[in-house]
Amino acid sequence: MKFTPLIQELIDSFKILPGVGPKSAQRMAFQLLEQNQTGAARLAKALQTALSGICKCKICRNFSEQENCPVCSELTRVESGQVCVVATPSDVLAIEETGHYHGRYFVLMGLLSPLDGVGPEELGLDLLAQQLSAGQISELILATPPSIEGDATAYYITDMAKDTTAKVSQLAQGVPMGGDISNIDSRTLGHAFSGRKFIEQS
Amino acid sequence: MKFTPLIQELIDSFKILPGVGPKSAQRMAFQLLEQNQTGAARLAKALQTALSGICKCKICRNFSEQENCPVCSELTRVESGQVCVVATPSDVLAIEETGHYHGRYFVLMGLLSPLDGVGPEELGLDLLAQQLSAGQISELILATPPSIEGDATAYYITDMAKDTTAKVSQLAQGVPMGGDISNIDSRTLGHAFSGRKFIEQS
Ligand SMILES: [Zn+2]
Ligand SMILES: [Zn+2]
Repeated sequence: MKFTPLIQELIDSFKILPGVGPKSAQRMAFQLLEQNQTGAARLAKALQTALSGICKCKICRNFSEQENCPVCSELTRVESGQVCVVATPSDVLAIEETGHYHGRYFVLMGLLSPLDGVGPEELGLDLLAQQLSAGQISELILATPPSIEGDATAYYITDMAKDTTAKVSQLAQGVPMGGDISNIDSRTLGHAFSGRKFIEQS
Repeated sequence: MKFTPLIQELIDSFKILPGVGPKSAQRMAFQLLEQNQTGAARLAKALQTALSGICKCKICRNFSEQENCPVCSELTRVESGQVCVVATPSDVLAIEETGHYHGRYFVLMGLLSPLDGVGPEELGLDLLAQQLSAGQISELILATPPSIEGDATAYYITDMAKDTTAKVSQLAQGVPMGGDISNIDSRTLGHAFSGRKFIEQS
């Protein structure tokens, strides 16, 4: 005997989630069906509403429910001329929690990784280039994670900004090697922000 | 800055799942939105199809996609006269995997727990009583877990079978105390099946 096809498909679908193996997926499926069908319906609806209702901000590429996200709609942030470049939406939240930064963001939604087919286009770097050449950015703060891909991405963006008026800075050392920006406690991250260094642009 | 309402609702919905805390829920939401929207759509659909397509078998109460589940539709299982009483659908699968048992099942979908409002009615014991008094059951094998609630449930069912022709047996000791039936390796569980003991019915 096997699971019925509908249950098997539900279990297989749960396995899509990060950190969920076969045993957990099975537990999730049975627990919802046995004890929490209301919860199951809520999760299904939340997924669908999110998929249809969430787009990317046309300015910063962060998840948004409007064309321009709330951050990019704040005049003081735009007028600061500061743009912090991060890999993921979670990084934006982690930086906001430090209270150290009041500019706007640019969310790459990834890092350069040629082997995985992630090039400058996938990260929206043409959009960032436009914003740079339009002269709207006075400081580009690179908050990509300290990893091979993070460093390659930071290097690429630094090069993009070379012939513009934008200064390029990078979060101070203090961000632990190999760590995700979004997992760093906000005090450490706050210090890294204050101590950011400007990068020599040759 | 907070998450947008749709993302927050998605995160909160993931927290419904067993073993998923705030951090994991956030990771799940962002990972699906950033990297696997196809997977998100698949999970949403699987949840909805399961909710609308899965019912309980009218004979054994196990999850089924038809009125009578495949197990209850097998004539040899029905004619065996053996009915194994288990707490959950996962227990059915674990027992099937041993290959030691060829009768049918009765799935309680829980255990007696008066404080949580789970009484005989919630476990479908009126249906089991009907089957007992109809004389269709020659042996009732109790495979409820060895816990306070499992023992109370087994005791209650033994009492129900008292004035019927059904013999009542219980899985042999060997099932570890406090363990879930579905988490036991199939060899141990197979031994417990072979060594099941008949219970004195006063
Ligand atoms: Zn934006
Ligand atoms: Zn059945």
